[in-house]
Amino acid sequence: MATQEPEHFRVTYNDVHNLIRASAAKIAEFKPDMLIAIGAPPSARSEDTGFFPARVMRTFLKSPERKGNIPIHAIGLSLYESLPGLTAEQIGAQVIRTQWLGPESGALLLGRRALIVDEVDDSRKTLHYAVSELQADVERALEALPESERDAKRAKFAVFVVHNKLKPKLADLPADLPYYAGEEIEDVWLDYPWEAQDIEEHDRLAAEGKKKRAASAQ
Amino acid sequence: MATQEPEHFRVTYNDVHNLIRASAAKIAEFKPDMLIAIGAPPSARSEDTGFFPARVMRTFLKSPERKGNIPIHAIGLSLYESLPGLTAEQIGAQVIRTQWLGPESGALLLGRRALIVDEVDDSRKTLHYAVSELQADVERALEALPESERDAKRAKFAVFVVHNKLKPKLADLPADLPYYAGEEIEDVWLDYPWEAQDIEEHDRLAAEGKKKRAASAQ
Repeated sequence: MATQEPEHFRVTYNDVHNLIRASAAKIAEFKPDMLIAIGAPPSARSEDTGFFPARVMRTFLKSPERKGNIPIHAIGLSLYESLPGLTAEQIGAQVIRTQWLGPESGALLLGRRALIVDEVDDSRKTLHYAVSELQADVERALEALPESERDAKRAKFAVFVVHNKLKPKLADLPADLPYYAGEEIEDVWLDYPWEAQDIEEHDRLAAEGKKKRAASAQ
Repeated sequence: MATQEPEHFRVTYNDVHNLIRASAAKIAEFKPDMLIAIGAPPSARSEDTGFFPARVMRTFLKSPERKGNIPIHAIGLSLYESLPGLTAEQIGAQVIRTQWLGPESGALLLGRRALIVDEVDDSRKTLHYAVSELQADVERALEALPESERDAKRAKFAVFVVHNKLKPKLADLPADLPYYAGEEIEDVWLDYPWEAQDIEEHDRLAAEGKKKRAASAQ
């Protein structure tokens, strides 16, 4: 008997588009004035990038009150595999910034409301490091300001992911950080459309998968 | 009688995906080892960004010989409107880098084969500035090397756009620069899927448009 394939969860472009559309109303309450897309470094096992979701999110965050587009910035992080027994500090040292917001990252973020965007929240490690590193930049930039001005200038962060996998996470996000997920899913094998060679076949299998899931839910 | 609307040319996600797929075979001959996505700044009239095309392009440039993914970097350019009678130097001074490859941009590019990616080539100004600025960074970094090593380390650039509009261009690209377009189109009003509020309606109108164009071509 053949070994069973891991369950694939295929997502179409229009699925992703509509998940972002459905999330945008809630996210608008956070009033982001900046999107930070996380890009996967070349050495990463995963190929997640927030580039596409960030671009679509900008469409749905447009409002008549806001002049111009919300800017999209990109950051790249490279994480080393963690070893058992590492302290938080040692884990922090395992991050390399492969691309960042520029030499004045902290100053750029002062007073901003930044929505950090990624495809999928798997182990939560990348998101953890992105938030910690960005917050550390802000704290360094705040030190140059008089103490009385710091609270008003402290950047606010929020996170949006298209999919959040319901599984034990290897890292945390600050408890008060607004967190938005387009969809919560089991720990399945996610196939995104931008990784498909044959997009028509991908869509066909995605439709089949939806039917199967609907049938088994009854 | 109502004024006639400008002709809309609606493109679906799968259209873009397949245009990139069809271009990737030719582009593979250039052997890019780096993708540079152009992001539109918040003040831009156009909302073009190369984020999504770059992400899909990476899928189709994967090859068994290559370990790991091709890295995607992002740059942002802000162009001021040009005034008549400006010299090339004055035009050059109108560019602001809203995000760049980092403080060591030139060094990062040494010896690389970089494919610059954008959605649409309209006036060609953004592409012109992107190429000039990146080449200038490379030349500055080359000055630190012995003259005998410079030629081998001079970065090679190529350009890919999903659509090239057939219209008079306001700026040039170097004549020897490899240039790839997914599709050449008339100067129509391009509607990309990531700008659609209602993606199902967008797809429906895109299919109608295709039928009309096919009928009028007969």
